[in-house]
Amino acid sequence: MDTRTGLPVVGMVGGGQLARMTHQAAIALGQSLRVLSVSPGDSAALVAADVRIGTHTDLAALREFAKGCDAVTFDHEHVPTGHIATLAAEGVKIYPGAETIVFAQDKQRMRERLSELGAPVPLWRPVSTAADIADFAAEVAAAKTARPSRHAARPDRDAPRDSTAGWPVVAKAVRGGYDGRGVWRLPDLAAAEELVATGTPLIVEERVPLQRELAALVARSPFGQVAAYPVVETVQRDGICVEVLAPAPDLSEARALEAQQLAIDLANALGVVGLLAVELFETADRLVVNELAMRPHNSGHWTIEGARTSQFEQHLRAVLDYPMGETSLAAPAVVMANVLGGPAGGMPIDERLHHLFAADPGVRVHLYGKQVRPGRKIGHVTVLGDDMASVRARAARAARRLQEGE
Amino acid sequence: MDTRTGLPVVGMVGGGQLARMTHQAAIALGQSLRVLSVSPGDSAALVAADVRIGTHTDLAALREFAKGCDAVTFDHEHVPTGHIATLAAEGVKIYPGAETIVFAQDKQRMRERLSELGAPVPLWRPVSTAADIADFAAEVAAAKTARPSRHAARPDRDAPRDSTAGWPVVAKAVRGGYDGRGVWRLPDLAAAEELVATGTPLIVEERVPLQRELAALVARSPFGQVAAYPVVETVQRDGICVEVLAPAPDLSEARALEAQQLAIDLANALGVVGLLAVELFETADRLVVNELAMRPHNSGHWTIEGARTSQFEQHLRAVLDYPMGETSLAAPAVVMANVLGGPAGGMPIDERLHHLFAADPGVRVHLYGKQVRPGRKIGHVTVLGDDMASVRARAARAARRLQEGE
Repeated sequence: MDTRTGLPVVGMVGGGQLARMTHQAAIALGQSLRVLSVSPGDSAALVAADVRIGTHTDLAALREFAKGCDAVTFDHEHVPTGHIATLAAEGVKIYPGAETIVFAQDKQRMRERLSELGAPVPLWRPVSTAADIADFAAEVAAAKTARPSRHAARPDRDAPRDSTAGWPVVAKAVRGGYDGRGVWRLPDLAAAEELVATGTPLIVEERVPLQRELAALVARSPFGQVAAYPVVETVQRDGICVEVLAPAPDLSEARALEAQQLAIDLANALGVVGLLAVELFETADRLVVNELAMRPHNSGHWTIEGARTSQFEQHLRAVLDYPMGETSLAAPAVVMANVLGGPAGGMPIDERLHHLFAADPGVRVHLYGKQVRPGRKIGHVTVLGDDMASVRARAARAARRLQEGE
Repeated sequence: MDTRTGLPVVGMVGGGQLARMTHQAAIALGQSLRVLSVSPGDSAALVAADVRIGTHTDLAALREFAKGCDAVTFDHEHVPTGHIATLAAEGVKIYPGAETIVFAQDKQRMRERLSELGAPVPLWRPVSTAADIADFAAEVAAAKTARPSRHAARPDRDAPRDSTAGWPVVAKAVRGGYDGRGVWRLPDLAAAEELVATGTPLIVEERVPLQRELAALVARSPFGQVAAYPVVETVQRDGICVEVLAPAPDLSEARALEAQQLAIDLANALGVVGLLAVELFETADRLVVNELAMRPHNSGHWTIEGARTSQFEQHLRAVLDYPMGETSLAAPAVVMANVLGGPAGGMPIDERLHHLFAADPGVRVHLYGKQVRPGRKIGHVTVLGDDMASVRARAARAARRLQEGE
């Protein structure tokens, strides 16, 4: 408790843009987010009043950081679970807990647990050798034969076994991947051999014949209250989310409820406290869980203006065991577009912002205070309106203006 | 320019809730507001990363503060105009300028200038003695006889002169009043004598037969672009604004346009850079200017969620000469209710917040991180919806919960 204000202190480990935007939300609740940042130049460290410099892998730094916090939570998923468990044992309210966040850190543990829970997952397997991967490809080929998709031509069961059947497969680093890093499409055995040679612990998954990607975002409090946001469509390019459409266009109510219920069930089963983002593949006939994140998530940035309660405030409410806020849409169509750093040189970012504001006075801009580097997420824009197609076009144009200058 | 981000630095003199909320807006624009705060416990100093401790009357402190700022602006109107003029002469972009802000600091100068401009003002006069005030009351009585209100019974011109006619009058301190302080209703000569004896420099004004109060908020950039927000109704209790209704209910379009045009004309005529809030009395047949403020204003707090661009972002855009943001309403009915400190003791503020969130998950809360003292503005709540009556009732209930506990 901050004795100056009578209001709680939340500490967030990590000083990225998620902590930056969480600080904005904390201010409205009468709080000031405490941030553990690796460097004073980090996105959140530039704007928060209570910044401690330290590393998330340093138990002593975490212990010192947690002193006086009413709750501690995370901007990323890289804090060792051992440290989280130690702090929890010492009485720190730290969310999500070690036994929960492991499912967002470790893709193998996540796939195992989801399989146990009967959640919809792709065929998958932990692998150590290229031969394991080849076996898995064969297994995928066999499963496809046994369970043809309603929409695919029926394969010929009597055809000779094809060494290319089942390939390509998707390999994922068990730990540490994000924004397309740590994910590989393996076309054949040679590619598998090359990847395995790097020594990265891997799982492999069948390639899901997805039509698009969705995300279901929920928040859960220690009391057990869960609040679900409208299901969104996430549009990826080169493995990076470039756009989020809220609500997901042309999603049937049944499918939307299925996605929300799945996220709620997972939040409860895994004991999540705070936000849970469930990244989903939508195929012709079902939903498949792709990834889990347990923190404010890129697929929820639209909620700052587009929902009654932003995901950042919701995360704070959840970890503080406040009642959850309303999640309904603030407009019929909301689109968030990420702004990536453009090529070096060219028009300075401040000038780009001038041009954007002149071109579209209604677009909402969020810049993260980051040095512009090609491909780096440096901000996002949000547009609200009545018609998804025009809102989407405006958001894309706005992101492009900030990204590329003109 | 912040070399770490390539984005501008705005300095705000004063560390109150206006600077606190401006910092929130600055974060979205990739900035970090620099705050000159009297004490490290001030509302904005609790949440901003770049806080300098100093007094707004100390020229050396202001000079040091302004170094490296792309623009300097104000959380309040108490910076001496001489200091502002000095800094401007030294090349600081400081807005609004000395020759403009004086009209928000000095009620006599404001009334003189508005009278020159032909803006609608009440009868008024600077006074030094109780006899001046009595003369003014007689003048008011004469004017009422000469120009009877359409709605009043016609007075009898031949009636003997009445020493109570024209009273009560309204006395205002030329400088420094706000939230009902510095304003007195003088019922008679004895009250006038008592007030004059305090030595406070005064003007007096006729009591305007107002039906309600309105506010027109505009922003103006150095380039000369002006953006006007929808006109709102402000509801006062004991001289303090308790509620703001956006848009002002049952306001004719003609009257709304008149109020917006008046604010735009004043912003242009006075050379305002940043926000200008024009507080208005609405009588049976006209608008009368009550006060001017040149900064984010309590009557504009609803814009954080209720308008496409918040007044805080708009103020930053204006002083940085960015193009102005869209000002349209985000919902058909928006109500902001101030939260005042309740009686000492009782339920702690954090617990009140829990109860409020449980009772109404859709209300937006803004707490200023201030010690609770009876009658002190410690925060505000905003509710958006379709129907003004129910939105207003929800906002009032929410404010009461935070104010009084249950």
